[in-house]
Amino acid sequence: MSEAFDAVDVIVAKRDQHELSDPQIDWVIDAYTRGVVADEQMSSLAMAILLNGMNRREISRWTDAMIRSGERMDFSTLSRPTSDKHSTGGVGDKITLPLAPLVAACGVAVPQLSGRGLGHTGGTLDKLESIPGWRADLTNAEMMRQLEEVGAVICAAGAALAPADKKLYALRDVTGTVEAIPLIASSIMSKKIAEGTGALVLDVKVGSGAFMKDVEQARELARTMVDLGTDAGVRTVALLTNMQVPLGLTAGNALEVRESVEVLAGGGPEDVVELTLTLAREMLAAAGRSDVDPADALKDGRAMDVWRRMISAQGGDPDASLPVAKETHVVYAPADGVLTSLDALQVGVAAWRLGAGRARKEDQVQAGAGVEMHAKPGATVRAGEPLLTLHTDTPEKFDRALEALEGAYFIAPEGSRPDLLPLVIDRIS
Amino acid sequence: MSEAFDAVDVIVAKRDQHELSDPQIDWVIDAYTRGVVADEQMSSLAMAILLNGMNRREISRWTDAMIRSGERMDFSTLSRPTSDKHSTGGVGDKITLPLAPLVAACGVAVPQLSGRGLGHTGGTLDKLESIPGWRADLTNAEMMRQLEEVGAVICAAGAALAPADKKLYALRDVTGTVEAIPLIASSIMSKKIAEGTGALVLDVKVGSGAFMKDVEQARELARTMVDLGTDAGVRTVALLTNMQVPLGLTAGNALEVRESVEVLAGGGPEDVVELTLTLAREMLAAAGRSDVDPADALKDGRAMDVWRRMISAQGGDPDASLPVAKETHVVYAPADGVLTSLDALQVGVAAWRLGAGRARKEDQVQAGAGVEMHAKPGATVRAGEPLLTLHTDTPEKFDRALEALEGAYFIAPEGSRPDLLPLVIDRIS
Repeated sequence: MSEAFDAVDVIVAKRDQHELSDPQIDWVIDAYTRGVVADEQMSSLAMAILLNGMNRREISRWTDAMIRSGERMDFSTLSRPTSDKHSTGGVGDKITLPLAPLVAACGVAVPQLSGRGLGHTGGTLDKLESIPGWRADLTNAEMMRQLEEVGAVICAAGAALAPADKKLYALRDVTGTVEAIPLIASSIMSKKIAEGTGALVLDVKVGSGAFMKDVEQARELARTMVDLGTDAGVRTVALLTNMQVPLGLTAGNALEVRESVEVLAGGGPEDVVELTLTLAREMLAAAGRSDVDPADALKDGRAMDVWRRMISAQGGDPDASLPVAKETHVVYAPADGVLTSLDALQVGVAAWRLGAGRARKEDQVQAGAGVEMHAKPGATVRAGEPLLTLHTDTPEKFDRALEALEGAYFIAPEGSRPDLLPLVIDRIS
Repeated sequence: MSEAFDAVDVIVAKRDQHELSDPQIDWVIDAYTRGVVADEQMSSLAMAILLNGMNRREISRWTDAMIRSGERMDFSTLSRPTSDKHSTGGVGDKITLPLAPLVAACGVAVPQLSGRGLGHTGGTLDKLESIPGWRADLTNAEMMRQLEEVGAVICAAGAALAPADKKLYALRDVTGTVEAIPLIASSIMSKKIAEGTGALVLDVKVGSGAFMKDVEQARELARTMVDLGTDAGVRTVALLTNMQVPLGLTAGNALEVRESVEVLAGGGPEDVVELTLTLAREMLAAAGRSDVDPADALKDGRAMDVWRRMISAQGGDPDASLPVAKETHVVYAPADGVLTSLDALQVGVAAWRLGAGRARKEDQVQAGAGVEMHAKPGATVRAGEPLLTLHTDTPEKFDRALEALEGAYFIAPEGSRPDLLPLVIDRIS
């Protein structure tokens, strides 16, 4: 078969700062999926895109071409509207767990296709897999039935959704081309648009523990993704939220499930509750349900009820005991004072090294491993009180985790205040 | 085996405009040669280098690492000094053919490792292979013996010389990363330095038919290569020469051999003679032999004598008839006037399409194919006189060749003068 374009011409165009045409973009994505454009050609194109950028039309077309590389789901036959959330990933970010059943309890269906973790940020599926019996893989039919019957599903994205993105994502990971905003945005949005959600709320994390370290970059990514969603007819809103400090008091798998259940039971750490409610309100509003207050559904147990049904529907036992790590190690506060910082990246790396995350895709995670925090910035601490508890099944990992935590926290004289960004930094719609 | 570096870290460093350290460069070239750094990683690094550049130290180290990927030749046991020439490639550039025996006739040995052509510029080996019996592949021992006995050798570079460069060159060709000055310079110079020549003259072509289209770019490439040679202890000089117009009156394989023999016989086109003598003087001077005048060796037949011995030593018959194409097509001057332009690129593409060059590495070239020019810019022409003769074994190729020549020449009213760069534009040492 003769090809419409030559890969080198497309690469050279972007290298020389020209715009790629719609047919060039359609061809390069399709030809890459078919294996006609080789990995070494796509990676040099990705580097040229990273360094020379793409404009709104190019990113939109690129996203569209990735969507067209696979199947599209369609939730229009459901009896209720759909709304989804995507987080760019952070330390202790278990928000999806209480959020999906909470929004479902308010009458909006949540089709949450999630991933596994790689590196220091945890994966939602890894967390849920610590619940005995729970399984991540559903067929499309099972997913539809659960959405109709329970209203919320958190499961693995099938291979048929945006296969071009899957191939490109794996390539970017090994070629230093992950950090390109057009490629990040199109990767996230191609999956979310192909998934077929009617509304989408993006939680773009900012800070040491996040992919985006500074607010301006995060704002650019958020703006790009909101534009892409809007262009594709998905009502899309983005929040920029603080990831200087871990979310909640736990980073790990079972540890975070436990904390999520606390939130669903009406308790839980203040920041997790606040962000869950804020995102729930955004998801409901984007789906046309600004009239309901999710705080009620949290208080009266309806969200917990959906959670239990959602876990059961996927084979999990909501009443089963969660795995506990075999060994713990406590870090004590070295002085009296005010905790003014607790670095998200360092806590995330410690949890990862304790076994909560994986270094390579094929690694197994430990369900019980992670870091438990006994104080968050702003809290007054006393010398000798527990500050952090490290959990792992493999105690030889404590040393490397403690290394990661060196300088991760700071205790200032009493009366000091931490200098932190607000939990929600900005809203882009 | 554990690796000293991670490929992604090296790519990200260059992507983010950092300098690569010496150990990073050494590792990445070695690991690429070993297959530990994958093609898709090297291509994204090559694109980052193309867009973000490398400084003199980085380029020098990169070149050195490529040299160390293979064997180094050593000509220090020869009874005379060595001097080599490299041309960046042009249309009708047969200069190596008369030049190597001419310099050898003046007492300096010429170890000329050459390549085959790809695209519109011809390859020296393709030209010589039109001589019945001549073979390009010599062992190192054969090469040494011929250098000692004849004084000049033109042969294919063995696979053992800078294998990292061979691998990288093939990769750059398909990933849009050919046009990076640090990579061009290090590719050329790694082979020339590994080859072990004592002195080197670079002929950097400028103009439509050359790789470098403008003087500033060509000067940068020349300067970079002269620095690399100097850093490696090779006496290196570069000339920037005109490639707006083809060199001589022929572009093809046997056609160019015939013209080269004319030059060696004391005739030939003025520009070919001038450039041959200029480069010969530079090569001799760089080898410490400014005292001899190559014009004498051309006049008195000594250069022709070395040519005949050089061709014979490699199995060729210097007295054999050269192949002639089966078909010709003449292009006539459409008007009276002065020929003011004759575009090198277009003539090169026409010769290529007639069968003189190859589109893919595995293609065969036609020995007799090419373009013969009956006038060069500055000449007065009369309507109806032959301007060009096209040669090919496959007459169905005439149409596409004639298409390439549309607008390739311009005949201005009598008294006009062509606006051309001089043959030698600049000298960098």
